[in-house]
Amino acid sequence: MYVVIPAGGSGTRLWPLSRAAQPKFLHALAGGGRSLIQATVDRLAPLAPPARTFIVTGGAHAAAIARQLPDLPAGNILVEPGPRDSAPAIGLAAAIIHARDPEAIMGSFHADHLVRDEAAFREAVRTAAEVAREGFLVTIGILPTAPETGYGYIRSGEPLGGGAYRVEQFKEKPPREVAEEYVASGRYLWNAGMFVWRTAALLDDLARRLPELHAGLTRIAADWDTPRGEETLAEVWPALPKITIDHGIMEGAAADGRVATVPGRFGWNDIGDWDTLASILPADNGGNVVLGLVDGNGVVERHLAVDTHDSLIAPAGGRMVVTLGMREIVVVDTEDAVLVCPRNRAQDVRRIVEALKAQGKHAHL
Amino acid sequence: MYVVIPAGGSGTRLWPLSRAAQPKFLHALAGGGRSLIQATVDRLAPLAPPARTFIVTGGAHAAAIARQLPDLPAGNILVEPGPRDSAPAIGLAAAIIHARDPEAIMGSFHADHLVRDEAAFREAVRTAAEVAREGFLVTIGILPTAPETGYGYIRSGEPLGGGAYRVEQFKEKPPREVAEEYVASGRYLWNAGMFVWRTAALLDDLARRLPELHAGLTRIAADWDTPRGEETLAEVWPALPKITIDHGIMEGAAADGRVATVPGRFGWNDIGDWDTLASILPADNGGNVVLGLVDGNGVVERHLAVDTHDSLIAPAGGRMVVTLGMREIVVVDTEDAVLVCPRNRAQDVRRIVEALKAQGKHAHL
Repeated sequence: MYVVIPAGGSGTRLWPLSRAAQPKFLHALAGGGRSLIQATVDRLAPLAPPARTFIVTGGAHAAAIARQLPDLPAGNILVEPGPRDSAPAIGLAAAIIHARDPEAIMGSFHADHLVRDEAAFREAVRTAAEVAREGFLVTIGILPTAPETGYGYIRSGEPLGGGAYRVEQFKEKPPREVAEEYVASGRYLWNAGMFVWRTAALLDDLARRLPELHAGLTRIAADWDTPRGEETLAEVWPALPKITIDHGIMEGAAADGRVATVPGRFGWNDIGDWDTLASILPADNGGNVVLGLVDGNGVVERHLAVDTHDSLIAPAGGRMVVTLGMREIVVVDTEDAVLVCPRNRAQDVRRIVEALKAQGKHAHL
Repeated sequence: MYVVIPAGGSGTRLWPLSRAAQPKFLHALAGGGRSLIQATVDRLAPLAPPARTFIVTGGAHAAAIARQLPDLPAGNILVEPGPRDSAPAIGLAAAIIHARDPEAIMGSFHADHLVRDEAAFREAVRTAAEVAREGFLVTIGILPTAPETGYGYIRSGEPLGGGAYRVEQFKEKPPREVAEEYVASGRYLWNAGMFVWRTAALLDDLARRLPELHAGLTRIAADWDTPRGEETLAEVWPALPKITIDHGIMEGAAADGRVATVPGRFGWNDIGDWDTLASILPADNGGNVVLGLVDGNGVVERHLAVDTHDSLIAPAGGRMVVTLGMREIVVVDTEDAVLVCPRNRAQDVRRIVEALKAQGKHAHL
């Protein structure tokens, strides 16, 4: 199969580590010295070799990605001429792959998610590929572990065999009570934005639901492997509709009964904010999670915790971070900014980014 | 009169701003862009011109002091060959001044204290100088504003006229209940280590109470203004007793009725820790004290407070410090270390310095 990894989104709730110029997926947030995008490629490598792995990203991050993934053919990093949301991004990769290999099955996975049980994850992807072979647009849904209000949900319907179910409906992020009902019903899965399909099936749906986008992508793909490739991309891209794959394709396809889901439970997390990260990473005896303790030279002690508990410390600025008498806080130190907040205010970190933007402090965004 | 400023002590509770190599007195902790030692010299300038102002310090800080005080004659920065506590330091200056001017009256003041009402302070020093003329060793005691347990106390006795009192006894730092009794009695003052005396009177007491020290200092002073000055200092200094002026001189002199005190109330503070500093400096509308907002180019906004109250922020590392949802905390950011602690743990910051020392992290001390 082919793997497509759309790498975008700046992860403002993970400021000041995650920045517009150095977003979440470029950082080793899960530890182990591998960035999230590197870990994503590693995790999928048994399913797709580098030659069949594609990244779709903006010009601002292409170079950093190329350096982090030296085994990836340079031509597999597809650079969008401007941000156009997920349907054009994923569609671009699908159209290019399809032009080369009309029988292709591709999976699309975010660059910045965490998966704890990689074998279980790959097993789910393999199952999804089996179902995709039959023509379905397949999504891997996550079996919910809590009534989260920060995710969209998928309502599953009749079983399709082989562990898959037909999808009845995609649901927006619900309020608390609704999320609780969803989870209690046992019929809902989290929408983690993981898709597997035949490129032919996706392009069919694109042609039906977003004909303008389909026409544009087809033009780009036709020229892609010719000397006019870049030129056609630059010409066509700016006029493409800005729309997500969920709204543009999946919702309509689900209503038409063309979407299947494979439920997965493999310790998935989208690492939305510092508090989430603190909950999922292994903590020391004091309940503290310390990021960035390892560099090329081995373990680096850059944090001194005196009577500090249940906190997340990211000493990513090269300087020593000392906490004394603190509980359940987040301290993130970077080259040019340091953040201090309680873990339970982690969601509001995006407000900081908004405030900095309003103040014109672009260097810190 | 002459002014002597012993400049020593690293102020470990003000880590990470205050360091062994860059102690408290070199920093503009009181704001206004003047370091504490500069502010001390400024405050005393109406009483003693630069030619009559002496600093006694260690070799590690002589250069920094010389740069911060460009008007001071280079020869007025007396460099101790090694740390020997306050009796040798103050005695050295007294002996050198006395050798040049046997009628001299000198005042000795710490380099790192804060005085809010400078006119009232100078008035107290002038009064002390009047009393010193009569031969007393005079200390300026601070009228207590609270039963502090972090200061030594002075018990005052019979009035000597002109606003001065005889000192009956010097008291060590008391436990809480004792401090409360002291303050309630109205007879006790804080010992702020501010002394005024005739150099002749001090040297008399030195000869009587610390004859070895007196002999050594007399030898040094006799050679000081000759080509052998440095050599004699280097030779004699290491053998001098290591003792404070309080223990070595003042306690015995008080018992002999030779000490007077002038009570002062001029907004004195020794800025012992970050919490104290937060209490005495002007706060913004949110109750926050932000240090270091002014540099040579004017106001620098290096702190973004979102829902932050009653905190002290020192963005002294050149980077942006952002606090979100915090209350009564201390955040001190420097070039190579950042500290986060609650204000009520400010006393324990010295434990951090001890821990760093134990870990051999000398670069951060």
